[in-house]
Amino acid sequence: MDRENIGLLLAVAAARGTSAANHALRAAPGVVAALDARAYSVLEQAILGDGPSQRDLAGQLRLDPSQIVALVDGLQDKGLVERRRDPADRRRYAVAATAAGLEAYAVGRLRIEDSLDDLLADLDPAERTTLHNLLHRIVRPAQVGAGTRE
Amino acid sequence: MDRENIGLLLAVAAARGTSAANHALRAAPGVVAALDARAYSVLEQAILGDGPSQRDLAGQLRLDPSQIVALVDGLQDKGLVERRRDPADRRRYAVAATAAGLEAYAVGRLRIEDSLDDLLADLDPAERTTLHNLLHRIVRPAQVGAGTRE
Repeated sequence: MDRENIGLLLAVAAARGTSAANHALRAAPGVVAALDARAYSVLEQAILGDGPSQRDLAGQLRLDPSQIVALVDGLQDKGLVERRRDPADRRRYAVAATAAGLEAYAVGRLRIEDSLDDLLADLDPAERTTLHNLLHRIVRPAQVGAGTRE
Repeated sequence: MDRENIGLLLAVAAARGTSAANHALRAAPGVVAALDARAYSVLEQAILGDGPSQRDLAGQLRLDPSQIVALVDGLQDKGLVERRRDPADRRRYAVAATAAGLEAYAVGRLRIEDSLDDLLADLDPAERTTLHNLLHRIVRPAQVGAGTRE
């Protein structure tokens, strides 16, 4: 597979990462076991972002808006996030984590980090940082529209 | 998004790559326009691999065997690959590109490379090589079973 294109390498590496993350989350205690990697990523972005809208989330995670709505609904049903009206723009709802969501994120994060350690086992810390930075620079252009209000 | 986990970065980068590849292939002439990134990857592996079995392909591409069967069926219907009985193991079929498959791969490859140039526009050649090598080392463990016969 030495000459395969980098798009395929990205796809296969991502599939391995998602599979490892799903496995790690399923083994976690409590409500975290009911999250898959996508739902966890939405929760993560709700916490790391500054009250993202659903449109922001769709741009950040490269998912269809309808997928985001379903994922936010699922997290809301579990009491992990809530939709809050944006005081600066009353047509816009921010997705914000609840206290239970912050706790679930903390639990999930440890599991995810363990699964990433396995995925990246052959890379030393400097190489992991390099990979992170290179991927970040590929992903960043997707966020040009992330400030768009819905 | 500065603290997001590398699994998410991989997933978003891969989604961008797949989307760009699908777009590039749809704009290609002839039968190539009927391929998506997954079908193209199967064709690529049939050419770069040494007559992979369907099980090999499933391992290399991290897809379910049933997905591989459907993708190989689609490529075979288009006259791009054929299943050949392995003389060394008559229970095993190798997936091999036809002359038309080799031609489609050559056309698709140029399109895919252009789309990857766009995806990786912010990275210089040395950084692209680094990314390729790091991803390859993440993906490689998936191929431990690639020599397994089906």
